[in-house]
Amino acid sequence: MKKVVIAYSGGLDTSYCAKYLSKEENFEVHAVSVNTGGFSEEEVKKIGENAQKIGAKTYKNIDAVSSFYQKVVKYLIFGNVLKNNTYPLSVSAERIVQAIEIVNYAKRIDAKYIAHGSTGAGNDQVRFDMIFQIMAPEIEIITPIRDKQLSRHEEIEYLKQNGVEMNWEKSKYSVNKGLWGTSVGGAETLTSEKPLPESAYPSQLQEKEAKQISLTFKKGELSAVNGKENSPEKNIEILEDIASKYAIGRDIHVGDTIIGIKGRVGFEASAALITIKAHHLLEKHTLSKWQLQHKDYLANWYGTHLHEGQYLEPVMRDLEAFLESSQQQVSGEVFVTLHPYRFTLDGIKSDNDLMNSSFGNYGEENKAWTANDAKGFIKILSNAGKIYQYVKEEK
Amino acid sequence: MKKVVIAYSGGLDTSYCAKYLSKEENFEVHAVSVNTGGFSEEEVKKIGENAQKIGAKTYKNIDAVSSFYQKVVKYLIFGNVLKNNTYPLSVSAERIVQAIEIVNYAKRIDAKYIAHGSTGAGNDQVRFDMIFQIMAPEIEIITPIRDKQLSRHEEIEYLKQNGVEMNWEKSKYSVNKGLWGTSVGGAETLTSEKPLPESAYPSQLQEKEAKQISLTFKKGELSAVNGKENSPEKNIEILEDIASKYAIGRDIHVGDTIIGIKGRVGFEASAALITIKAHHLLEKHTLSKWQLQHKDYLANWYGTHLHEGQYLEPVMRDLEAFLESSQQQVSGEVFVTLHPYRFTLDGIKSDNDLMNSSFGNYGEENKAWTANDAKGFIKILSNAGKIYQYVKEEK
Amino acid sequence: MKKVVIAYSGGLDTSYCAKYLSKEENFEVHAVSVNTGGFSEEEVKKIGENAQKIGAKTYKNIDAVSSFYQKVVKYLIFGNVLKNNTYPLSVSAERIVQAIEIVNYAKRIDAKYIAHGSTGAGNDQVRFDMIFQIMAPEIEIITPIRDKQLSRHEEIEYLKQNGVEMNWEKSKYSVNKGLWGTSVGGAETLTSEKPLPESAYPSQLQEKEAKQISLTFKKGELSAVNGKENSPEKNIEILEDIASKYAIGRDIHVGDTIIGIKGRVGFEASAALITIKAHHLLEKHTLSKWQLQHKDYLANWYGTHLHEGQYLEPVMRDLEAFLESSQQQVSGEVFVTLHPYRFTLDGIKSDNDLMNSSFGNYGEENKAWTANDAKGFIKILSNAGKIYQYVKEEK
Amino acid sequence: MKKVVIAYSGGLDTSYCAKYLSKEENFEVHAVSVNTGGFSEEEVKKIGENAQKIGAKTYKNIDAVSSFYQKVVKYLIFGNVLKNNTYPLSVSAERIVQAIEIVNYAKRIDAKYIAHGSTGAGNDQVRFDMIFQIMAPEIEIITPIRDKQLSRHEEIEYLKQNGVEMNWEKSKYSVNKGLWGTSVGGAETLTSEKPLPESAYPSQLQEKEAKQISLTFKKGELSAVNGKENSPEKNIEILEDIASKYAIGRDIHVGDTIIGIKGRVGFEASAALITIKAHHLLEKHTLSKWQLQHKDYLANWYGTHLHEGQYLEPVMRDLEAFLESSQQQVSGEVFVTLHPYRFTLDGIKSDNDLMNSSFGNYGEENKAWTANDAKGFIKILSNAGKIYQYVKEEK
Repeated sequence: MKKVVIAYSGGLDTSYCAKYLSKEENFEVHAVSVNTGGFSEEEVKKIGENAQKIGAKTYKNIDAVSSFYQKVVKYLIFGNVLKNNTYPLSVSAERIVQAIEIVNYAKRIDAKYIAHGSTGAGNDQVRFDMIFQIMAPEIEIITPIRDKQLSRHEEIEYLKQNGVEMNWEKSKYSVNKGLWGTSVGGAETLTSEKPLPESAYPSQLQEKEAKQISLTFKKGELSAVNGKENSPEKNIEILEDIASKYAIGRDIHVGDTIIGIKGRVGFEASAALITIKAHHLLEKHTLSKWQLQHKDYLANWYGTHLHEGQYLEPVMRDLEAFLESSQQQVSGEVFVTLHPYRFTLDGIKSDNDLMNSSFGNYGEENKAWTANDAKGFIKILSNAGKIYQYVKEEK
Repeated sequence: MKKVVIAYSGGLDTSYCAKYLSKEENFEVHAVSVNTGGFSEEEVKKIGENAQKIGAKTYKNIDAVSSFYQKVVKYLIFGNVLKNNTYPLSVSAERIVQAIEIVNYAKRIDAKYIAHGSTGAGNDQVRFDMIFQIMAPEIEIITPIRDKQLSRHEEIEYLKQNGVEMNWEKSKYSVNKGLWGTSVGGAETLTSEKPLPESAYPSQLQEKEAKQISLTFKKGELSAVNGKENSPEKNIEILEDIASKYAIGRDIHVGDTIIGIKGRVGFEASAALITIKAHHLLEKHTLSKWQLQHKDYLANWYGTHLHEGQYLEPVMRDLEAFLESSQQQVSGEVFVTLHPYRFTLDGIKSDNDLMNSSFGNYGEENKAWTANDAKGFIKILSNAGKIYQYVKEEK
Repeated sequence: MKKVVIAYSGGLDTSYCAKYLSKEENFEVHAVSVNTGGFSEEEVKKIGENAQKIGAKTYKNIDAVSSFYQKVVKYLIFGNVLKNNTYPLSVSAERIVQAIEIVNYAKRIDAKYIAHGSTGAGNDQVRFDMIFQIMAPEIEIITPIRDKQLSRHEEIEYLKQNGVEMNWEKSKYSVNKGLWGTSVGGAETLTSEKPLPESAYPSQLQEKEAKQISLTFKKGELSAVNGKENSPEKNIEILEDIASKYAIGRDIHVGDTIIGIKGRVGFEASAALITIKAHHLLEKHTLSKWQLQHKDYLANWYGTHLHEGQYLEPVMRDLEAFLESSQQQVSGEVFVTLHPYRFTLDGIKSDNDLMNSSFGNYGEENKAWTANDAKGFIKILSNAGKIYQYVKEEK
Repeated sequence: MKKVVIAYSGGLDTSYCAKYLSKEENFEVHAVSVNTGGFSEEEVKKIGENAQKIGAKTYKNIDAVSSFYQKVVKYLIFGNVLKNNTYPLSVSAERIVQAIEIVNYAKRIDAKYIAHGSTGAGNDQVRFDMIFQIMAPEIEIITPIRDKQLSRHEEIEYLKQNGVEMNWEKSKYSVNKGLWGTSVGGAETLTSEKPLPESAYPSQLQEKEAKQISLTFKKGELSAVNGKENSPEKNIEILEDIASKYAIGRDIHVGDTIIGIKGRVGFEASAALITIKAHHLLEKHTLSKWQLQHKDYLANWYGTHLHEGQYLEPVMRDLEAFLESSQQQVSGEVFVTLHPYRFTLDGIKSDNDLMNSSFGNYGEENKAWTANDAKGFIKILSNAGKIYQYVKEEK
């Protein structure tokens, strides 16, 4: 019997796929969910039950939180990556790791088919298909939702006729939660002018009292929250727990999809936003001018390639080498105050702080050079401009 | 008698310079202040009175708000320029225009000397000197503060001995106000870890009720606030008036100075921040992917060069040509909600909106292509990756 | 009767298409060739005769040499564009202009179909299809060669059966000639290791005596050869005439195709290579450091986008605005010596030359600054490095 | 007695410095020459003798060829670095390593002073001073030539009066030879229009018969010439030996100096040019599109920073990490034919060649995708352009 691994979320689309493939196409269905930080134990249990109901031969949940952090999130922090200066690439980044886990699982159980529930109108199909095709060109990809373009009603009917009755009530907002943020789509995000209503965001405001927290970084990685050490991925979860109660990190991303259309999606990502901004501040104190300049350029590209599903492009490894190298001095503590819906960066403490008072202070006094040094500096710095002006006018 | 034009602010340093130059060095002192948006009529009057007291032969205030907007601010908006992703370059940008106005004034009155009050430890000396030297290499620059490194006390004593008694009481925070924002320096900004206290910011919170406003852009320029048309520079002032009551746009900039040390400075710039973010959102809807990508790179450099006093570098005119060209489609309305200390971007309306529903909607449905088109697209897009993987593994 | 405009070269593939579409698909065939610099009058006549033989209702040759220069070549010179630092994009650039001319012609005669003879394995299909689809989404594109993947033999047989007998003998090398260079493909270019033999290049060595020529540029455009003024496109032809006799400008381009595979193609482009290198030298004398730096980056992207068929991407207009602006001072004369198979750049003469001797000469003497100025300059320039080293070691 | 380490070349300027410092300033002079590939044993011996004559207490020649290769040249090859697309940075690169060796030597012998013979008008003073100041801020830098601006005649007279009589006859061209090329300056290079005469170049044409050679690279490093393995630096010397007989690699560099003026200098660098071009060709076959794109950008900056003496900028280590990472697949053989005054790149052989024939060949046939895949690809690729055109026209 032909084995198919299906990227299974427990929702209507992937349930339909699973049933359809086993019944109509005679596949032995192996349902796999990959947890990149969004699932509680309870949810995993429920997904597993659904898998059973629709007749999957096996169900497996792969815990990929650490792998997600190590493979992708780490570099997004090193690079302070915000797509279009707004979006921490929450979903884009997850999909990559999910695809890699699934293709590796398919290889392990020797499946020659992988199915997923993406439509033909989004980015996810590109991210999934590309990674599957590159890592396992011998595996065939099956995408009933994309191919058949069924309505929700048709899918529900089909499942019902085949003895699967579950509550498929569609929630008003489609929500995708993970370690690096939660995306929120709904009727408003299909327009250009409407914001999401307060109620659409999963994390509602619970704390109103401002509070200062401290984030410790070691070589660019979040090593402690409020002085308490943990793995970086755990620290992100701890921070999310604290900050999401302030309803921090909400925004709407507007961007270009891989398939050439513009898309708009809401998100909340308090830990991602705070971590990136705190990390960036620490870098401003510990990196050189040219490190900041070139890192900015490269990290922007790192984000663009990742967003477009190009995680396996060999240049990504080269960019990671650059980013890793740049973090040698990025250690220290950052102080952040949380307020309802916003946060402020208060300052940093670091042994590597280049704002060093034994040298001249900005605008105040200069111990390390004289007025004449400064004048000579400016004179020489003006040479090129003087020559240009002279040549332009006097000729 | 030797004429000197002095860049005059009415403060202690430039008053000392003026007195010193006229008395000890026998100069005919022409005091000039350049208003780039920070001075009220009353302040101008007071500066003029001070100029008289210290014995300036003439005093002139040059209104450079429009020139500031046209020469610099316009392009900072086109480019969404925030230095180190934070600072709208409020002061850096002003200094350029002030220097240009002063050197032109000196040429007009045929002065062979220009004096300014900068120290030898900051950026301003570089910005002033470079523009003076390039635009008028025949004019000599005189900088008593930089050369003599006097204490405030010494300066006050000298003025007193020469019959100038004014209230030189130093305010706790040094504040520089202009069209594009207000910088705030104090004891805290000389440290790396301390934020500025609430009271240090000139604009205190006065409005607590959230309010939606609308900003209209025409080819990238702010043409109306809440539907009311005005010149862009006037609109920035109107917006500042509305938004500063919400205490929006405060932050601390940490960056590299031209002279190689790190500096830290607080600022509030509600109009600048809101205008840039609203403009950027409109661009995400109206510019192509590659326009956004390349603009980002170039605008970052535009900001860096401007910050470093390189306004006269010929490449700046080329960058401006690019930025100008990129704004042809950037017209429309942006909806912004103001809250205490923060704002949200709600959405946009534009005839040029590329998020066009007669084409496929993101992730929802695709009218303009089939599932097979999408599969073909992804297959070809995977070619390079497949070949790389094949060559790497199979060889 | 359905009208189809066919991009017609007179060769086997497009002859097959024309016959096939008129006979089997009942089209009224309008054959169009677009001359971007490669066709002699005689060749045009022959193409027209072939068109008649295969039963085209009309034949039209569009002279697009000037349009090619104005739309594309001009900017390739402004940008010194050499793809992968080697290839002047001879064919890539032509295809764009050919596609635009053809789609405009189809619109003029109200044809609802365009046919071309590209295969499914190359770049040209992408360049043609993209421009057709974007400029005229209502027009259907027909590509029999791509769809049917026939052998040459099958095509010849089909034509013979339908009464078209011509000499279809395949030349050993496929050659594409145009204003901006000639590409040469053959058995060797399908390998990675073999160079093209001497005989494969259309322009054989005829001159052995070295000769100096002078090229005059006005705002970046080639305004005269050896002092004789002409339109830039005419000057390129004149230069090609002179320099191709030296067998200059041969090389092999290895690059990434739009469809993700690597390709290799030989070319000769003496005028393109000499013009670009001479223009670049003049820029080194007349542009500022930062103009050279940023121009290089942008021009590289201009070439990449053009190569990938993205001529209609709006960012291309913005890049052109930058490039145009950058050429204001690029006027002067460049002296080039031609030798068999190579040329040397001897030097330049320009009123805008920034290597101005009234300022200090490099390494020789400095009139415009003192030793102390230089020392001050270097001291301040070392600040950032000193602080970094200090912080790194002393902490 | 105060110890001074003098960067000693044996020439007039540094001889004058040495004598002057020992006699007039009472220094204990330690002369040091650093061989970065230009000195023969004989020359070293002669420099040593000169050092003795002018009364140096010690003389030391430091062999830094390997260190030069490992620290700098390796990355210039990885990055295919040619400043302004012409100059392999021969001298710029050497100075860095010479400065590092000298400062380390001064530290070893506990000298508190370093002297060098640079003028105040060139780049070398900046490169030397910056590295000295950053690596040893406690050491004082002494530069009599820069400070006193003596004529050659005055220097010779002074030496004569102090008993040092040598043949100081100035050669017509000042030549600086090293592993990575030889620079040549003379009367012509002070003009903008004159080329150097044939006779100015040290390596005259000796071989006229074309000859194919093979260069083998392992992870980007030149591991063998004509199949014979050696250290990369030795291979560069071997290649120089072979290729300089063909008078290959001559050109004139025109560029911006660190001090803002333009400079012009001739050079010959056959090994550098051939190695870089061969390496680049191998990269075109073995690197991905995006590796080539981003590498180009970063390597350009690597060269610019190095040229400007910024070798110790921390970003240089990050750029090196990127470059190193990018070379994993750059292994294989490159075939080059040497001709008088020029060379051609014939092709490559590599196990990592991505131009892999089991996939589709460019323009020929496509085994890995169908015509419909290609059409779908182009259709989706046109989406963005279609939407833009539609919105622009239909609104």
